[in-house]
Amino acid sequence: MENLNEYERIDDLQRNGFRIIQDARLFRFGTDAVLLSHFATVKRGEHVVDLGTGNGVIALLLCSLYEDIRVTGVELQQASYELCRRNIELNGISERMSVIHGDMNNVSEMFKAGEADVVITNPPYMKKGGSLKNEGYEKSLSRHEIAVDLEGVIRAAAYLLKFGGRFYMVHRPERLAEIFGVMSKLALEPKKIRLVQANPNKAASMVLIEGCRGGKSGLTVMPTLNITDENGVLTKEYDNIYNG
Amino acid sequence: MENLNEYERIDDLQRNGFRIIQDARLFRFGTDAVLLSHFATVKRGEHVVDLGTGNGVIALLLCSLYEDIRVTGVELQQASYELCRRNIELNGISERMSVIHGDMNNVSEMFKAGEADVVITNPPYMKKGGSLKNEGYEKSLSRHEIAVDLEGVIRAAAYLLKFGGRFYMVHRPERLAEIFGVMSKLALEPKKIRLVQANPNKAASMVLIEGCRGGKSGLTVMPTLNITDENGVLTKEYDNIYNG
Repeated sequence: MENLNEYERIDDLQRNGFRIIQDARLFRFGTDAVLLSHFATVKRGEHVVDLGTGNGVIALLLCSLYEDIRVTGVELQQASYELCRRNIELNGISERMSVIHGDMNNVSEMFKAGEADVVITNPPYMKKGGSLKNEGYEKSLSRHEIAVDLEGVIRAAAYLLKFGGRFYMVHRPERLAEIFGVMSKLALEPKKIRLVQANPNKAASMVLIEGCRGGKSGLTVMPTLNITDENGVLTKEYDNIYNG
Repeated sequence: MENLNEYERIDDLQRNGFRIIQDARLFRFGTDAVLLSHFATVKRGEHVVDLGTGNGVIALLLCSLYEDIRVTGVELQQASYELCRRNIELNGISERMSVIHGDMNNVSEMFKAGEADVVITNPPYMKKGGSLKNEGYEKSLSRHEIAVDLEGVIRAAAYLLKFGGRFYMVHRPERLAEIFGVMSKLALEPKKIRLVQANPNKAASMVLIEGCRGGKSGLTVMPTLNITDENGVLTKEYDNIYNG
């Protein structure tokens, strides 16, 4: 049995018995991480880097969805990094998943250029200048562009990806134009997006994005995903993603 | 009674008695023009320029929706230009709407810079290299970037718009990243988009875009508009837009 402190609990990831320890003082995963890991496509034998992996949820979900892949997380915060290590042990997947304690701005000190087939990230959504809520510093780092900004995340991804490699990110729709601009500048061509709405009458709260390193222009816009229908009932598609 | 040739017919625009002559040999308006004119906001007294106005449908729809505005169409094709003139007469709105026979690439010879409060356009969607269907040359000019390309359209709009002026365009979702790139380059900041889907399970076939000349970054993504529901029944919102 895992030793948990008073802020921790173990959640079931609902996929092949995968579990995750979460700490109430740190950033805990949400719908965005789950949707992003299902939006991504990873092929047999590919190496995935998860930038800002936190407690490792996206990496864990990918390992639960695909058997023959290798995932490396990068995490700046000491506490999250340690939690991620414990999550790797808890699920007994140390031969497939690992985590590096470091700053993604220095990714060239950790990896060779082009070492990744896939880069995935659930980065801070809010600009540095945005209002900081009364939350712990650790949570602020995960939500606001304090330690890394949008361009830093995309620059790290562009460095890591081989030519033709795929980039997956979830972000706020209000930053879509900016995101496309930075991606294009760094030769990560936007290839696919999907909007996610709470229900058919609500504006999208998230956008899932796929890019391709060195790809040609031409964007696929997937059907908008609604979490519930007009009556507040979970849609079949969302239920399938979330509950397997 | 209007004199019609064998290819022409008069359609009711379903708004305050407005009508339009269309010619089967030329580009006829579709859902995109109707949705774009409803997506746009025009304020009292504003001057709107409709780039590539064709038979004038968007300009006519705006005149039917707003009384106190002035709309100038620009149209390259002689036959469409003449049809547009007849449509202005047919609706008796020559004091509010006019049309210039000319190439939008030369917009600086027709207008002073910053003369427009609003620019609206339903440009050719397809790249020049795309496969030309067996259609007349006039229709090809409306559908393919032969006479003007995306950058040419946006450059004309950027020239015409006053600081803070609004740009409205309908286009194909697969070109969204490219569109945002050109808009940003020409200081027409993307401010609002809306995807349009045939039904909740179909990928979007159109995107409606609002930009602001010199605007700050920050995009509003409106709820995706579905034309029909899962059962093929027109959605209430679409029905309201289309049938008034």
